[in-house]
Amino acid sequence: MIIQLKQHISSDERSQIQEELGKIGYKANKVKTQFGEYLIGVGKGAFDPRKIGVLPGVKDIHIVTDSYQLSSRKWKVHPTVIDLGDGVIIGEKDFAIMAGPCSIETEDQIRKTLEHLKSEGVGIMRGGVYKPRSSPYSFRGLGIDGLKLWSSLAKEYGIKIITEVMQVSQIEEMFDYIDIFQVGARNTQNFNLLDALGEVDKPVLLKRGISGTIDELLHSAEYIFSGGNEKIMLCERGIRTYEKAYRNTMDINAITVLKEKSHLPVIADPSHGIGIRDFVEPVALASVLAGADGVIYETHPIPQKAFSDAQQTVSFEASSELIRKLRATYKLKSKHFVM
Amino acid sequence: MIIQLKQHISSDERSQIQEELGKIGYKANKVKTQFGEYLIGVGKGAFDPRKIGVLPGVKDIHIVTDSYQLSSRKWKVHPTVIDLGDGVIIGEKDFAIMAGPCSIETEDQIRKTLEHLKSEGVGIMRGGVYKPRSSPYSFRGLGIDGLKLWSSLAKEYGIKIITEVMQVSQIEEMFDYIDIFQVGARNTQNFNLLDALGEVDKPVLLKRGISGTIDELLHSAEYIFSGGNEKIMLCERGIRTYEKAYRNTMDINAITVLKEKSHLPVIADPSHGIGIRDFVEPVALASVLAGADGVIYETHPIPQKAFSDAQQTVSFEASSELIRKLRATYKLKSKHFVM
Amino acid sequence: MIIQLKQHISSDERSQIQEELGKIGYKANKVKTQFGEYLIGVGKGAFDPRKIGVLPGVKDIHIVTDSYQLSSRKWKVHPTVIDLGDGVIIGEKDFAIMAGPCSIETEDQIRKTLEHLKSEGVGIMRGGVYKPRSSPYSFRGLGIDGLKLWSSLAKEYGIKIITEVMQVSQIEEMFDYIDIFQVGARNTQNFNLLDALGEVDKPVLLKRGISGTIDELLHSAEYIFSGGNEKIMLCERGIRTYEKAYRNTMDINAITVLKEKSHLPVIADPSHGIGIRDFVEPVALASVLAGADGVIYETHPIPQKAFSDAQQTVSFEASSELIRKLRATYKLKSKHFVM
Amino acid sequence: MIIQLKQHISSDERSQIQEELGKIGYKANKVKTQFGEYLIGVGKGAFDPRKIGVLPGVKDIHIVTDSYQLSSRKWKVHPTVIDLGDGVIIGEKDFAIMAGPCSIETEDQIRKTLEHLKSEGVGIMRGGVYKPRSSPYSFRGLGIDGLKLWSSLAKEYGIKIITEVMQVSQIEEMFDYIDIFQVGARNTQNFNLLDALGEVDKPVLLKRGISGTIDELLHSAEYIFSGGNEKIMLCERGIRTYEKAYRNTMDINAITVLKEKSHLPVIADPSHGIGIRDFVEPVALASVLAGADGVIYETHPIPQKAFSDAQQTVSFEASSELIRKLRATYKLKSKHFVM
Repeated sequence: MIIQLKQHISSDERSQIQEELGKIGYKANKVKTQFGEYLIGVGKGAFDPRKIGVLPGVKDIHIVTDSYQLSSRKWKVHPTVIDLGDGVIIGEKDFAIMAGPCSIETEDQIRKTLEHLKSEGVGIMRGGVYKPRSSPYSFRGLGIDGLKLWSSLAKEYGIKIITEVMQVSQIEEMFDYIDIFQVGARNTQNFNLLDALGEVDKPVLLKRGISGTIDELLHSAEYIFSGGNEKIMLCERGIRTYEKAYRNTMDINAITVLKEKSHLPVIADPSHGIGIRDFVEPVALASVLAGADGVIYETHPIPQKAFSDAQQTVSFEASSELIRKLRATYKLKSKHFVM
Repeated sequence: MIIQLKQHISSDERSQIQEELGKIGYKANKVKTQFGEYLIGVGKGAFDPRKIGVLPGVKDIHIVTDSYQLSSRKWKVHPTVIDLGDGVIIGEKDFAIMAGPCSIETEDQIRKTLEHLKSEGVGIMRGGVYKPRSSPYSFRGLGIDGLKLWSSLAKEYGIKIITEVMQVSQIEEMFDYIDIFQVGARNTQNFNLLDALGEVDKPVLLKRGISGTIDELLHSAEYIFSGGNEKIMLCERGIRTYEKAYRNTMDINAITVLKEKSHLPVIADPSHGIGIRDFVEPVALASVLAGADGVIYETHPIPQKAFSDAQQTVSFEASSELIRKLRATYKLKSKHFVM
Repeated sequence: MIIQLKQHISSDERSQIQEELGKIGYKANKVKTQFGEYLIGVGKGAFDPRKIGVLPGVKDIHIVTDSYQLSSRKWKVHPTVIDLGDGVIIGEKDFAIMAGPCSIETEDQIRKTLEHLKSEGVGIMRGGVYKPRSSPYSFRGLGIDGLKLWSSLAKEYGIKIITEVMQVSQIEEMFDYIDIFQVGARNTQNFNLLDALGEVDKPVLLKRGISGTIDELLHSAEYIFSGGNEKIMLCERGIRTYEKAYRNTMDINAITVLKEKSHLPVIADPSHGIGIRDFVEPVALASVLAGADGVIYETHPIPQKAFSDAQQTVSFEASSELIRKLRATYKLKSKHFVM
Repeated sequence: MIIQLKQHISSDERSQIQEELGKIGYKANKVKTQFGEYLIGVGKGAFDPRKIGVLPGVKDIHIVTDSYQLSSRKWKVHPTVIDLGDGVIIGEKDFAIMAGPCSIETEDQIRKTLEHLKSEGVGIMRGGVYKPRSSPYSFRGLGIDGLKLWSSLAKEYGIKIITEVMQVSQIEEMFDYIDIFQVGARNTQNFNLLDALGEVDKPVLLKRGISGTIDELLHSAEYIFSGGNEKIMLCERGIRTYEKAYRNTMDINAITVLKEKSHLPVIADPSHGIGIRDFVEPVALASVLAGADGVIYETHPIPQKAFSDAQQTVSFEASSELIRKLRATYKLKSKHFVM
């Protein structure tokens, strides 16, 4: 049960609502985000929502039968729109494109990528400065210095930045230099990190776990939202299956089902979803018709020389071709299909 | 190694080629199909293909490094086209649509479905008369009598038939009444059935196993082809994963990769691929851009009353809408994308 | 619902029971096996079992809430015991051991294996004469001639034979030469084959599908039982997962759970369960304590030269060591543990 | 390549070794643990190990072909033994038993569990104070205050404590109150946490990821070891598969294979491995013969009232029975089997 509270609710009114919840055996979880204040009632019994709905201080009340609440579409039927500023908006009108290298490597690499994106009218650049690597002996990214350099260059070109945050202590450090925090597939259930990202007012792109379920992903989003941050995107990036012909198995079903179950924007990651350069395009295009609000993919000035994920990184030429087709597909869908 | 033989090869010429293969330590598997004659050389050592290529009786020779041979695109770069007659062609120009109920039930159900398909210009009706069911106590289909009725009605409407064959002894029985034999996901590695389907001149749609790999699917196709039948379609119908939010996980990657690895047409089955009526459409549309040559899906006059697979069967209204969007998507792809 | 019928039930009595079932909306499936006659009532509503229990001709009635019925332990609490004759009994007192090569190859290979088994007091030899192979170009077994040779030699040594049957037409052909029919993992849901094996009076070892569920396995056993054959063993042989460090993932849980859900004997196949020679022993021993009634594993006079499955086949020396430990483990369990 | 350095190596000697590594194109990673100092050479080319082996300061050099190095058995053939003090030793002679509730709840619950363990001669109690929960609205554990209470009671009974650490900032806070840090399945690839646990001198039990591979687990252990902490245990706790009959699928193969690939002790978690109370015993016993050095399982004074994991928690009575059988099985293995 989600109780939306009025903006200028008094503490007496608040107490009265909690008292009423107590009477029906519900525990109230207080949530205060950048956009509003909520009480999440968790309990089991049946009750008459009107009794709470009429209380002073209550803006609206919704029964949500999912065990995740704020992430559910059952209380918020309109899709969430995330505004990054400067006209870069996710989840409305336009199809969002985020592209760039797996790892941030050099100034030259950053500049070339920014130029490519600029020339294609793409507003968001992806890149890693903290890299989660299976082996401790692998390249782990340029860290905060790399991020600062990248950030200053991106501002020069008027392009937004998305990059992965791996632990709580990095959040503050990174905050001023990025536009979107990315939570990687290995951290989808790093609950302390999710809690901490709930406390900042900056969009978060939350990747599905390596073998995460739809349900787990939505509960992880619930951590961020109930922590206080409504600006969340869900990302399908392929799951681990028995099939060895590709790195991961892109779960197109997940995109469709997430759009139905949640109001949050869904972003597809075809690069990790199949993990093979030549197949990124068809998987990306399929994702548009499955319902994705955007894509995030890997591109690099010289893909085969990328420090990491080289085999799944496309050239700028292929990137340009992909962007053209993504936009044509999205246009077909938004103009001619009522989905 | 695939050696294509000339049409009027003499037995002396044939012996000479086999002798030459023996010298380099290769075993020759003779294959004679409705379209040609081949020798499949299986062995390990390196050799000079020109030595065999110049022999009389040899039309062409190809080195295929995959362990499947005839199914591979490495020797046949042009896609295979399957002509069902009366202008119904799979794998060329048009996007193939096959639709109909999970099970054939009654004359009324068949007629209504045929009328729906006719009015939408769809040339192939699907339906089951032999139903593989997990439990021996479930409805197992109307059998051969159902098929005969259906066949006569379909001919009336000028519509082709695809239905599942479950065992060798059914092939002859069904032959005159169907246009495409379907091999179900539980029989993808029923090698005796595949062998027997190699001996008939009728198209076969081969479904991927419930947890089958790409590699296994192509080897199963190889059974049919090397048995003598080149008219094979591959079908992606979702795989079994840990995710419980849907019946199967549609493997969009497989469509893309099968098109790359094989010259055979690839058909998507979105009904089984997600298993939930409301999500069949986005999964079907995604499949078009992933590269599918056609779809096969379940529709029924009263979906919720279907004898089997009710939850994943769409209404005729939804079917019409889907057909319109499939064609618009295919048009976008074939006219504006060079994929 | 399972209704056990009396031995000399009259046709009037039978009709009366079916009529009574009809009244409560249940469909009656007639089952006649080598050991008894049953009516399996399939329906949904609640009813008073005593009303049917008191009818003449009824020996006993059981409510079975599983959708499989005859395979369930809910009506038959004592474990099924299968007697192969000559003192070779499965499911009682002794731990059953079945060992031998993946493929039957030569007389010498057969004799050496029989001698090894004889010297260890093992009563059942495994081996393949019809081999399901992913590729049509692989060795597919010696066929019926190999089986006849093997059978005559095995009789000489007083050892029983288990081998895989791949299709209905082989059943009659093989019948006189074998003691146990094996249904392989690719045929667990080959329902026509299961139906046909229900009609013979010979034990069947039914392997779990490559990615088969517990539920599917028990339903497949139900096909054989309801077809008329009660002599069924269930076999866990590892499942397909994402892990690439071994061929399959032995599902020890399945052994334990199958013993709880069904009265049928459970046999473990550690050779396929892990697929690596050096690890067959620990997996086999673990299976004993998980509850297996026996094991089936691959051994060969010269493992590395085996025509198939060489990498998972153990030497006779390792086999002897394994047998000793299997027996010691089974003794610990049966003497000192009440499980 | 692992270079073990002598205890009193000079900085000149160290430089010389690194220089030599540089010549052959290897990068040196310095590792200093509580037991020794190493240089891990990472590179690709072939070289003569004797040239480095003879340098002053080098104690020994090993070529390790796995990409994990220090976790591998290839340089350290003897199993690692972890001494917790007071006679509680893991990985030698005795079979290690760790038991207790999923969550620490009350003083009464803690005392009763300690008494149970004491009476059975079990030296290590498990319990959670920081609980990773899928939903933010679930019970998240008693936190540090619960740990302090538990710790003081455990000391009273002379019993060691193992509990889960979820983030870097908890390590220092928990350090004085625990004997073993547990890394949960959701944090197996939380690399920052692993790095931080490398810096403390306290044993770590590292659980395999929810769908983690053997290879990933060993690389995660490598993070801890190369960070400076050699006291690592690996824990198999079941993996996520398609099978819905149990919570997870216990991967018995993993236990066997981990023992072969690594010198680190392997602990089995049958509670999570199957997730159903009645089946914990057979899975636990199977794990002993698969090669486990110990088990960790959930037990509670009133299992059905446990705050979390109730369905997989056994009673003290069942726990006592299990302990007796675990010891009998381990005795059989260690006395009579040479594995």
